[in-house]
Formats: sequence, C-alpha cells, structure tokens
Amino acid sequence: MEEKKGSLIGPEILEILSSPQSADKIRESFAEMLPYDIFVLCDDLQDDQIARCIKALGVPTGIELFQEFNDERKREIFSCFSREWMADILEEMDPDERADFVNVLPEELTEEILPLVARAERLDIKKLMEYEEETAGAIMTTDYAVLPPDITVKSALERLKLQAFDKETIYYIYVTDDQRRLIGLVTLRDLIVSLSYKKMEDIMRTNLVSANVSEDKERVAEMLHHYDFLAIPIVNDGNCLVGIVTVDDVVDVVIEESTEDIYKYGAAGEYIDYMSANFFRVARQRAFWLLILIFVGFITAWVLKQNSVMLETVVALSFFIPLLLGSGGNAGTQSSTVVIRGLATGDIKMDDLMTVVRKELIVGVIMGASLGSIVTLRALWLEKDIRLGIVVGLAMIATIILGTVLGALLPILFKKMKLDPALMSGPFITSIVDVVSLMIYFRIAFMVFSG
Amino acid sequence: MEEKKGSLIGPEILEILSSPQSADKIRESFAEMLPYDIFVLCDDLQDDQIARCIKALGVPTGIELFQEFNDERKREIFSCFSREWMADILEEMDPDERADFVNVLPEELTEEILPLVARAERLDIKKLMEYEEETAGAIMTTDYAVLPPDITVKSALERLKLQAFDKETIYYIYVTDDQRRLIGLVTLRDLIVSLSYKKMEDIMRTNLVSANVSEDKERVAEMLHHYDFLAIPIVNDGNCLVGIVTVDDVVDVVIEESTEDIYKYGAAGEYIDYMSANFFRVARQRAFWLLILIFVGFITAWVLKQNSVMLETVVALSFFIPLLLGSGGNAGTQSSTVVIRGLATGDIKMDDLMTVVRKELIVGVIMGASLGSIVTLRALWLEKDIRLGIVVGLAMIATIILGTVLGALLPILFKKMKLDPALMSGPFITSIVDVVSLMIYFRIAFMVFSG
Repeated sequence: MEEKKGSLIGPEILEILSSPQSADKIRESFAEMLPYDIFVLCDDLQDDQIARCIKALGVPTGIELFQEFNDERKREIFSCFSREWMADILEEMDPDERADFVNVLPEELTEEILPLVARAERLDIKKLMEYEEETAGAIMTTDYAVLPPDITVKSALERLKLQAFDKETIYYIYVTDDQRRLIGLVTLRDLIVSLSYKKMEDIMRTNLVSANVSEDKERVAEMLHHYDFLAIPIVNDGNCLVGIVTVDDVVDVVIEESTEDIYKYGAAGEYIDYMSANFFRVARQRAFWLLILIFVGFITAWVLKQNSVMLETVVALSFFIPLLLGSGGNAGTQSSTVVIRGLATGDIKMDDLMTVVRKELIVGVIMGASLGSIVTLRALWLEKDIRLGIVVGLAMIATIILGTVLGALLPILFKKMKLDPALMSGPFITSIVDVVSLMIYFRIAFMVFSG
Repeated sequence: MEEKKGSLIGPEILEILSSPQSADKIRESFAEMLPYDIFVLCDDLQDDQIARCIKALGVPTGIELFQEFNDERKREIFSCFSREWMADILEEMDPDERADFVNVLPEELTEEILPLVARAERLDIKKLMEYEEETAGAIMTTDYAVLPPDITVKSALERLKLQAFDKETIYYIYVTDDQRRLIGLVTLRDLIVSLSYKKMEDIMRTNLVSANVSEDKERVAEMLHHYDFLAIPIVNDGNCLVGIVTVDDVVDVVIEESTEDIYKYGAAGEYIDYMSANFFRVARQRAFWLLILIFVGFITAWVLKQNSVMLETVVALSFFIPLLLGSGGNAGTQSSTVVIRGLATGDIKMDDLMTVVRKELIVGVIMGASLGSIVTLRALWLEKDIRLGIVVGLAMIATIILGTVLGALLPILFKKMKLDPALMSGPFITSIVDVVSLMIYFRIAFMVFSG
C-alpha cells in the first residue's frame, strides 16, 4: 500500500508517528477518541505506522482499532508485528472476529503462532473455526455472560461486576443448569428492577428464543430483527449454550444478503470479493450467465431469419427493432425489480399473484399507449409511411404490456415452483421478452403490410 | 380482508376467538408467548378478530402485538376499535412507532381522537410529526433514560428502577445539565461496575457521538453501525437532548435503503408502497424512465437508417442485432451491478478507478473472445457465410468489451461528478451500449463486405 495523504490525516499525525517518544504521544493524542474515529484517521497510513499505533494504544483501544480494518488490511498490518505480539493480539481479540481472522491467515503462519497463544484462547479459536461459514456458529461470540439459577439477584450483580470487562454484552445474562443447558434469560434491566434477595430462577424468562449452531446465519439475523433482541443464544444439539450472536452482526448479515440479491438481479453470479478476485474467476462466473442468455438470443436470430422476406421488403422494419426490444426489456426489468424485491422483503406475498398481475397489466396498458404513440410519431417522422407507424406503435404497446406482465408473473411463478425468483430478474426477462415481442412485431407487420 | 386459513393457524385459535369467555382464554393461551410469535399466528385472522386479541391482551403485550403489523394493516385493525380504545392505544404505543402511525391515519380521524389522548402523549405526537420524513427526528424515540450529573451511582440505580418500565432502553443513560444539554453518557454496564458513592459526572463518558434531529436517517444508521452503539442521542441545534435512535431501527433503515438502491438499478424510480399505490402513480413514475431510455433508443433507429443500404444488401446482418445488443447490455449490466454495489458498500473506492477499468477490460477480452467464437459458429451454421461469421464474431468481442468497460467506468465517473452512480445501472448502460455497438457492427460489416 502506498502512502496517501488524505484530507483527514494532517501532517500532525505523521509527525507524531515519527517522533522518538511516539508511543506516549500517540496514546496522548488518541486517548479521548473512539476506536472507529481513530480508524478513519489512520486508514490512509502505511501498514507499519498503523501497527505502531496499535502497539502504542495497547488493550483495549489498540485491539479495537485493529478490529476495525477489513480482513485483507488486517492481514497486512498483522505482518508488521513480531510473533509474540501476534499471539498477544489474538488473545485479546473478540472471539468471533478472531476466528474469522485466523481463517484468512496463511496456514504456515497460523501453525507458527497458535502454540504461542494461551491455551483457553487457542482452544476457542479451534472450536469456532470448525463451524461452517454460513452458520450461526461462524458469527457467534463465546464472550457471553452466564450465571447459575440458584444465586440471588444481589450475588448475580456482584458476579457480573467481575465479568463485565470481558464480555461482549452483559445486558442479556443467560441462565444454565450444571450441564450448561440453557434454561433461562435475565436481562440486566430485569436484574436492576428485581428485589435483591430473589433468586435468578424466580425472575428468569423461560419463553426462550434460541438458535442451533448450524442454523443459517441469515435466519438468525432475521430472528434478532423480528424479536428486537440485543442477542440470541446459540445452542448445540444437546441444548447446551455455546455462544451468542449479537445485534451488531445483524446489520453485516443484512448488507451481505442485499449484495447477494443485487448480484442476482444483475445476472452477475455469486458475490465474490471483487477487488481481490482474479480476472479468470470473475470472467468465468459472468460468462456462464451470459452464455445462457446468448442461447436465448439465438432464438431471436432464428425468428428474424424466418421473417427475412418481410425484412427485405420493408427494410425500415429493422430500424425499430433495438428500440422496441430495449423498451420491452426495460419495462420488464422495472416490474421484475419491484416484484422480486417485494417478495424478498415480504411486501408482496404469494397470495397477491393475481392482484399484482392485474396491476401490471393496467400499468402496462397505460405506459404502452402513451409510449406507443410517441414511437409512432417518431416512425412517421423518420419514414413518412403511415403503415410503418401503425406497426411500430402497436408493437410497442404489445411489447410493453408483455414486459410488465412477464416481469411480474415469472418471478412469482418461479417462487411458487420453489425456485429463486431472482433468476427471473432484468436480463432474463429481457431475453424472453426479446423473443416474444419480435414474433408479435412481425405478426403485426404481416397483417398491416399484406392486408 | 378475506378470511384465510393459513397452515399455522389451527382451528383452535378460531375456537378461542369465538368462545364466550374469550378474553380470558386469549390471555391464557398467549400468556407465555412473545409478541412476534403471536403476530405470526394472528397474521391470517380477520381484522376484528385481531382487534379482540389486542384488547384481551392489553398493556404491554397487546400493544406490542399491534405494533408488529405494517402501517396499512394497523390502520385496518385500528378501525375496529372504539374512539376511546383508539386513544388508549395511542397513549401506550412507543413514541416513534406512534408518530409514524398517526401520520398514515386519515386526518378527520386524527382530529377526532387526538383530543382524547392524554396531554403529554398528544404533545409528543405533534412534536415528532413535525420532523421531516428522512431525518433522525422522524425515527427517534422520546422514551430514553436521562439523569442529572450530580447524583451518585446508588441513587442513579434507584431512579432507573422507577424509569425502567417506560423506557425503550435503559442500557444507555444520558446525562444532561439543567438546560437539558447533553453532557455525558453512562452505560448501565458502567453503572454496575462503579462504586456506589461515585457521582455520575465522575464516571460519565464525555467523548460523545450524537446526531442533529435534521441529520439524514441513513447517516445516523451508519453511525450506529460503525460505532457499534445500542443507541445514538439526537440533539437539537442548541445541543439539547430531544430523543434517541436505537439499534433496532438500523436494520429497518438498511433494508429500506437497499430497496431504494435496487429500484434505481432496475430504473423503476423511487420506492413506493407497491401494493397500496394506484395504477397511475406506478405508471407515471416508470414511464418517465422508459421515456428517457426511448429517446436514447431513437438514436439506434437513426444509426440503422444510416446503414439501410448495407442492411438491404446483407439482410442477414439484421438477424444478429438483438443477440449482439442483448449480450452487450447484459455484460454492461453485470459490471455496472458489481461496481455500483461496490461503491455503495465501500468495497470499491474512488481511487480504484484505474484498477477497476483495467480489470473489466481484461474480463471483457476473456469473455468477448470465448462468446464471440460461439456466436461465429452460430452465424456460420445459420447462414453459411464466412464473412458474416467474422463480422458477427468481431462485433460480439467489441460489444462485450464495450459493455464491461462502460458498465464499470460510467458509474465511477458519475460518482466523481457528484451524481448518483445508480443512474448508470443496467437499463441505462444497455441503452448506451446499444447505440455504440450498432455503430461498431456496421463499421466492421462495411470493412469486411466492401473490402
């Protein structure tokens, strides 16, 4: 990474970093700042300069600063530390962040530094790394607050004081039996308002919502969102508490999920980290979808060849083909976008099929009629042939209606058939509309010019 | 709304709702359930049946159940209550939810029931309704915990006990001076671990992050996400605390924002509530974008007319126009999707311009070469004319490269010019690629057939 001078980082920071007593100076300058603000300020610095900041800031601020960077940048900064420092950093990181990060480190390095990491943390890393990528296990943290059922509120508060610094959250306290089986939840709010001699088992909530470690992380994020919880307990098959997923992870999952959806809408395939993926991987993935669309496109070539006599007789018919197909494709892209997104967010339900199709039909008629007349005028102006104007105008109306209706209908039908509705997004609708509207165009042309 | 019998709702619920002592029965059956679970169960019931459940469950469960429904359904259920019940419900709802809901009620009804609402809540509704839609003020709640700086930890905890039931969260406690100006933050975690004789001002955090009421709500959601806070304090121009935005709102904002982005990608205009919007509104909005695209399409008709002699001589050239333009448009849609989303999430930065364009150029060459040869074979098979095969194949390579490069370049240039990069999404890229690749196609055809 080259040194860049962003607008935010003044020469002051560079000066601080180059001064002989810099560790003290760094601590002093950043003492009052929040980790995210330091991150924004440091983002443009060189990796070794950031490593010096992290060292100077120490636990917890330095570690929190380190965790702000994305995995790739973390790896670059990490390589500036000594082996001992690397082990120290791993020991202090949040368990969920740590397991993700170790996953992206080169294996030789991991093998070298893991033995230097304290036993408890080393075992935790190994355990968390075993969970499969898209599961609750892969995003959960193991730093949660847990207490037995038979202690009083007073002693619970005392124990929490001791745990507080280590835990990701102490606002939800889980109650487990002596087998670590999850039996209750006490929020810190419950604890504060309860009488101090009450027992945990008397005040705990037992209508628990939990998720299995192997549950899809999107599903866990949805649960957190629906129930408005700050965290959700994660249990193994024996209902033993093994971790929690906290609310801050939900936003990451939602953003990731939207990106995946958007890639599908654009027929761009699976989401891959674009900046670090190599050319062939990107090309192979996209070419796959293009190829499918090209095979549909072959049909258009065939339809046109079938109508070559008409095309030779009225060459001007070909002038309007791109305009016509483009408009049909765009109208289809619009309605499929609205319907696919609506199905994803739940705004549109499967029962709404007929309502939606009827709505798109009417919208298509309104748009088709108005845009059809504009295109007719354009055709008359370009060719001064009334018959051509009629053909192009009528075909435009038909194409737009076709686009809006198919764009709404096909995604819903796909969903009904348990297929991903996003397969019927813009590019696919466009290809299908291309074929059908060409056939309609020549049918109308045949009637008008031969009639 | 018709009565539907979903798979989840058994005859038992209907039986409960029709029994003479139903209120008790409802309370009994739902006593242990979380509001979201009751919502899922009730969603398929008729509005008046849901209203009976809400009445029977009372405060807080009934109110929480009511808040689970979307605005439209809330309005329908609301209309089943008496005026007095309506006022009671408004008094008990969360302030942020309440203000949003009153906003969608018919004005006559609001005027009729607001006088029945207790004064404090009535003023709160009016105040919150004044904030503009996309601002922090519009999503904030006024049920936050606030304490003065000069009380001890011990008395702070006692006061919190009294506030706890009313507040959206008591995990963040804001400290204000006697003018209500925000001066500090104490988390409940801080409070628990502090010595009981310490004063709030001694333990409070003063490196505060707050947002102005008029700040864009997306920006506030971003702040909450970046800093990993549970809530962010909202202040007026005089730095007086007026509300808080809590972490549960972030997910709603992120989902809404993604929907808006997706609509732009599909050239479908602004997001409107599809199921309740009328035909003309939907049609007008979409026709606006279609019309712009049609004007670009007019250029394709002109380009084709310019080349009508060539089209008359080699009619087969027209067979491949939809296939060619379709592929170029799809390749452009793919790369613009990846780039626009990358710019939105921050995966791709403005400094990456050259890297991205170079990458797309290479990806375009790889895809163009492979797909170009397939199309050449198809052309040879359809027409048995080697010259046509060469023209179509070369044009395919050029079109795909053009699509991938423009799809990446134009969104970034738009962003550099401070325009919305999403304006250069699929449909727009497709239209531009249509025009340019037609010109290239005929240029190549001219060289091959005349040379």
